[in-house]
Amino acid sequence: MADGFSPIRWSDGELLLLDQTLLPEQQVWLHCRRPEDVAGAVRRLSVRGAPAIGVAAAYGLVLGAGDFDAAYELLLATRPTAVNLCWALDQGRVVRDRCVEAGAHTELRQRLLNWAGDLHREDVEANRRIGAFGRELFEEGDRVLTHCNAGALATAGYGTAIGVVEAAWSAGRLASVWVDETRPLLQGSRLTTWELSRLEIPHRLITDNSAGAIIARGWVQKIVVGADRIAANGDVANKVGTYPVAVLAARHGVPFYVAAPLSTIDRHTASGADIPIEERDAGEVVHAFGKRIAPRETEALNLAFDVTPAELVAALITDAGVLRPPYRESIASAFRDRDVAGR
Amino acid sequence: MADGFSPIRWSDGELLLLDQTLLPEQQVWLHCRRPEDVAGAVRRLSVRGAPAIGVAAAYGLVLGAGDFDAAYELLLATRPTAVNLCWALDQGRVVRDRCVEAGAHTELRQRLLNWAGDLHREDVEANRRIGAFGRELFEEGDRVLTHCNAGALATAGYGTAIGVVEAAWSAGRLASVWVDETRPLLQGSRLTTWELSRLEIPHRLITDNSAGAIIARGWVQKIVVGADRIAANGDVANKVGTYPVAVLAARHGVPFYVAAPLSTIDRHTASGADIPIEERDAGEVVHAFGKRIAPRETEALNLAFDVTPAELVAALITDAGVLRPPYRESIASAFRDRDVAGR
Repeated sequence: MADGFSPIRWSDGELLLLDQTLLPEQQVWLHCRRPEDVAGAVRRLSVRGAPAIGVAAAYGLVLGAGDFDAAYELLLATRPTAVNLCWALDQGRVVRDRCVEAGAHTELRQRLLNWAGDLHREDVEANRRIGAFGRELFEEGDRVLTHCNAGALATAGYGTAIGVVEAAWSAGRLASVWVDETRPLLQGSRLTTWELSRLEIPHRLITDNSAGAIIARGWVQKIVVGADRIAANGDVANKVGTYPVAVLAARHGVPFYVAAPLSTIDRHTASGADIPIEERDAGEVVHAFGKRIAPRETEALNLAFDVTPAELVAALITDAGVLRPPYRESIASAFRDRDVAGR
Repeated sequence: MADGFSPIRWSDGELLLLDQTLLPEQQVWLHCRRPEDVAGAVRRLSVRGAPAIGVAAAYGLVLGAGDFDAAYELLLATRPTAVNLCWALDQGRVVRDRCVEAGAHTELRQRLLNWAGDLHREDVEANRRIGAFGRELFEEGDRVLTHCNAGALATAGYGTAIGVVEAAWSAGRLASVWVDETRPLLQGSRLTTWELSRLEIPHRLITDNSAGAIIARGWVQKIVVGADRIAANGDVANKVGTYPVAVLAARHGVPFYVAAPLSTIDRHTASGADIPIEERDAGEVVHAFGKRIAPRETEALNLAFDVTPAELVAALITDAGVLRPPYRESIASAFRDRDVAGR
């Protein structure tokens, strides 16, 4: 956000996480001293959003440096869909292995901390690059629709989709934002509105199922969302409800953009069909707002994510530039360039 | 429902309405003695669903027989989209006019009551015919998805879309029902689940934005919804969120059916563009169950309905049979047949 807001802070040997389950009403910071604290926060969605989970997990490894493998396994098991988690943990293991090879066991915690701090800063920088690339796709007067929260709260800072929104707004290329409320956990109505309000960007909240009417009326010129995992062919797993919006966008000729760092692209997942989709507790659907909203005997299905096929994605806005179809080629090329650059 | 359940009862000179805002937790019957009581119940959605609103308004005219024109105007102004309201009120005015012509002023209340009772019974019978026609479209093992509540609660009894579901279930042509929760007022999670539970039909609740994932997985063979108004060309206004489901159905080759009596078809509305769409209080989106779920300064847009173009509708299941495209012709023909039959 404008003030460089991050929902993740390292301070005095502790990881501080802003408890997003309590927003917008309360701003409470969780103090994590053990990897178990971090794993619990990820599972409960106190910290959520693929890039934020990755960075939080990195600090979780720092806290668990004394029993690295146990911390690694514990954190890996928290959530299955966001690839950044796995990607960050694997990077952490490389740091550990190099440390062990160098016989520098006593330095492990410090080296992990240096690496996690780098990851933290790099994520914010990546998001700023995403914002700069993304704003070029916008035109003055555009009204953009977003689903869930892919803002500063979902990342180490600045945000992916909301980073693009902020950059477009600052460049005078945006009129306002439509915010899908994002049932069941209302990341849109609780978190995205909170961020847009702080950024002073005009916005209006709608129920998820209103997007069809809004788009059909011609009130949406662009759609931009984040991603939890992007397959090598460009298929996108993101918060459930993303796919219907992409289908509506295609029907009405509205460009549907996905904003995410390269770290969200999993080259080892061939297509969306191979992305594991987390099924969460049905209680999140039948209870809401502290109250049961369905008869006692009602069963529910609670899929956390859905998959949007690459053919519906107008562009992937990444930290390495705007990737266009065919994605298998543009993604492979972006990674080649990055590898050549030695990052 | 199986026991002939109706949310509308006439008893001892009072109209009793089951207060649907309190379901499923409490079953409270409102006692309406004046047209103002009925108008308030319609506005607050204590009674909702196009056919139910029509029948409730008919009884509202009975209660207001002493000042017919005032009652007519009051009830007409309650909700703009459901055409059954207007249709029932206009029928009531014909009853009044005939009564006046016959110089039978003192009989007005009784004549209106006879007419309202007929309307009540005819709606239930129409729904049973809709069910019988609709079940022929189903095959053993079908899983059907429905949005909002078009059950006994939305009608004078038996239901339109849920009438079809019940008839298909009784005929052994249905495996289970997916129930969209239907934000903001949760008619799916509160009302449709309650009805299906009483009917002992297997069902599972989902958030509205999960329909895309469920349909994409091949878990839905049919979709059936009700309608608030159908234009002469077959365009359908129904609870917001219906249109996205229809678009998803088209993409995945799943038949999308609309179940409604002919009284929901407005031959004087040429197309969906001419249907007035009610915008309700934004508080329904930003507050839920007595709790604010978005920041204080957040504004919301709350469209109650959307329009599904006729091209996405596989068939209209009416009390006069299953109408197929082109709808302008099949609708005109159904009304000609009805007029010839002298109804």
